[in-house]
Amino acid sequence: MSLRHALLAMLTAEPITGYDAAKRFEASVGHVWHAPDSQIYPELRRMEKDGLVVGEQVRWGPRSTKTQYSITDEGLHALREWMNSSLDYQPIRDPVHMQAAYYEWADPERARDHLRRHIAHYQEQVDRWTVMRESIIDATHPSIAKRLEKFPAEDHERIIAYKAFAYEGLIDRGLSEIAWAEKGLDLIDKLSPDGG
Amino acid sequence: MSLRHALLAMLTAEPITGYDAAKRFEASVGHVWHAPDSQIYPELRRMEKDGLVVGEQVRWGPRSTKTQYSITDEGLHALREWMNSSLDYQPIRDPVHMQAAYYEWADPERARDHLRRHIAHYQEQVDRWTVMRESIIDATHPSIAKRLEKFPAEDHERIIAYKAFAYEGLIDRGLSEIAWAEKGLDLIDKLSPDGG
Repeated sequence: MSLRHALLAMLTAEPITGYDAAKRFEASVGHVWHAPDSQIYPELRRMEKDGLVVGEQVRWGPRSTKTQYSITDEGLHALREWMNSSLDYQPIRDPVHMQAAYYEWADPERARDHLRRHIAHYQEQVDRWTVMRESIIDATHPSIAKRLEKFPAEDHERIIAYKAFAYEGLIDRGLSEIAWAEKGLDLIDKLSPDGG
Repeated sequence: MSLRHALLAMLTAEPITGYDAAKRFEASVGHVWHAPDSQIYPELRRMEKDGLVVGEQVRWGPRSTKTQYSITDEGLHALREWMNSSLDYQPIRDPVHMQAAYYEWADPERARDHLRRHIAHYQEQVDRWTVMRESIIDATHPSIAKRLEKFPAEDHERIIAYKAFAYEGLIDRGLSEIAWAEKGLDLIDKLSPDGG
């Protein structure tokens, strides 16, 4: 259950409300692990029940309060345990590559559209990951800035380096998808020289 | 529902029984789209009900019969329609990269294990995809041989080229994952020079 571990990792930097968590999933963690708000709030409540976080009412606006969660020792233990355990690999299910294997059944112009869409999709992701990676490395990303405040200077290099490394992998993967789709566009031109 | 479309694509080469389909998912299509036997049999029955395939009893061993499915015109139409339609991209959920982003919480030796496992996983996949790709290109793969028998010579180049192209993309992606994990091993050595 990786949402739980993403939340635990997030909480090691500072206490957060469900609203903070949702915002951060949108602004950073969500570029590696997508989670809708509808999963984040109940998961935080389950984690509180399981003793991994503790909730506290904090003031929210002039007349309201919200629950802010802090990670407990048990939560830190659960995070370390997950960090030290091997992940299972899911069997492959790749609709884009499956479709591409049978492009002789598509109109060439539609196959081109699929590949152009593949390029646009990954280009958008690569752009996002690149911005994230840069704001991690120069520590201008607010979550990173908060995290560096909390941990001693001798930890800063690795805190930054591992996060930059994770995004680097996603960027490389995205670029490899783009290069593949570009080869595909050339291939369609070669196989359908009349333009379709 | 890509299992349905994988089955339709498979059926364009020749009629198959559920058993044939399951074997092929293990031997070829399954390297792009994994499907357990428990999904394949009921899906073929649903496709028959939907008029996409037609079942016929064929002899199986000395005293038994099995249902062999052939694709119908409606099935061919459904395949072409899917081939011409754009696929949706699922939001990212990448546990390996998420875990890597927080390696400072793992024992360095465990983080190394994760990356070694990542390399082994993708190396195994790359090896499989490479063998598949080669047996497609030289048409020694039985499913490809069957397919080429069925279609006129002028279609052969594209039948082969698109399938080789699909595997090429998977191979490139696998190699990019391996290269990333190798960079990660170097990074851990740099950040944990005492070996952990």
